[in-house]
Amino acid sequence: MTPKRRQGQLIVLSGPSGVGKSTVISELLSERPDIYFSISFTTRQPRVGEEDGVNYNFVSKETFEGMIARDEFLEHARYVDNYYGTSLKVIREKIEAGVDVLLDIEVQGAAKVKEKCPDAVFIFIMPPSFEELSRRLHGRNTDSEEVIEGRLQKAREECKQIPNYDFLVVNDKVSDAAAQIISILVAEGCRTKYCMDMLEGV
Amino acid sequence: MTPKRRQGQLIVLSGPSGVGKSTVISELLSERPDIYFSISFTTRQPRVGEEDGVNYNFVSKETFEGMIARDEFLEHARYVDNYYGTSLKVIREKIEAGVDVLLDIEVQGAAKVKEKCPDAVFIFIMPPSFEELSRRLHGRNTDSEEVIEGRLQKAREECKQIPNYDFLVVNDKVSDAAAQIISILVAEGCRTKYCMDMLEGV
Repeated sequence: MTPKRRQGQLIVLSGPSGVGKSTVISELLSERPDIYFSISFTTRQPRVGEEDGVNYNFVSKETFEGMIARDEFLEHARYVDNYYGTSLKVIREKIEAGVDVLLDIEVQGAAKVKEKCPDAVFIFIMPPSFEELSRRLHGRNTDSEEVIEGRLQKAREECKQIPNYDFLVVNDKVSDAAAQIISILVAEGCRTKYCMDMLEGV
Repeated sequence: MTPKRRQGQLIVLSGPSGVGKSTVISELLSERPDIYFSISFTTRQPRVGEEDGVNYNFVSKETFEGMIARDEFLEHARYVDNYYGTSLKVIREKIEAGVDVLLDIEVQGAAKVKEKCPDAVFIFIMPPSFEELSRRLHGRNTDSEEVIEGRLQKAREECKQIPNYDFLVVNDKVSDAAAQIISILVAEGCRTKYCMDMLEGV
């Protein structure tokens, strides 16, 4: 009758560029170090400062295509000449070991994950407003006006996919956004459907 | 694009006698004084120490039957010679004003509420074990062994209704149980389906 869930939860996080998703994820992982943050596989070359097994799992094109052939990806996509993908094998092992797994993934990838794992928890991170998103993108001082306009347009397109997500978290203050995600995970852990094993013998 | 929900949430709490539900509710309301705790209407006489408008709304049989005739109850039942019921009117006013409303209600009443308000949040409070529930019931020192056995039997029957609830909270420690309920309410407030108004103009 213990309410422990036997399996971990798969948590899918999406959100437009500039919303501060990686800062929210850092905060979340510092509060919940038990969560396994899934790292994507890619065939692109590491950039300066990027580490294998930290930012990405860097693999050769042959290795990646072998993984595709063995159906080892939860989702994968090809951008320009490079592959990017999420290993189903690693995630499945963690989930079965009772570990919660976090995926940071864009909306198309999330849609593919939803097809395969409808029970995953889908969370979309929003900016407080598009004005604020614009301010944040300008504040980075890294992109041209044209690039920023492109990102804002893409953000509007991505927001149209929000109905595919279970939860919407507004990143106004990072600690609040992380706390809301933690609450969502606590609540999901209390779902009756995941706790029915505790009723054995009742 | 503000994620404020326009309406309050209806929260339905059930749990077997002796589980410590009223203590959990007190803790919850002290943390979340903005929640309106719905008080039942009854035609029974107040017991010593009970106050009108605090423990129950005490009304005459004629008043109660008039409310039934005007379909003013979300649910009502008759036990022995007395009526008990939950006013739909009061709840609707609160919800529409954006206030979260908490109902403490037994499983049959909760099933009726679910028919009328499928979007309400249904939470069942469990004891850590039936052994512990038995200990708590004995610890009260108010009931005979026969009465306690009856309560335990009823608790087992009530637990069979758990699949009708969305969430299961184990009252091992009162503060933990209240915190889990608060997390559930935070998470429900982040549900995409309640936040779609923030996407107007996107």
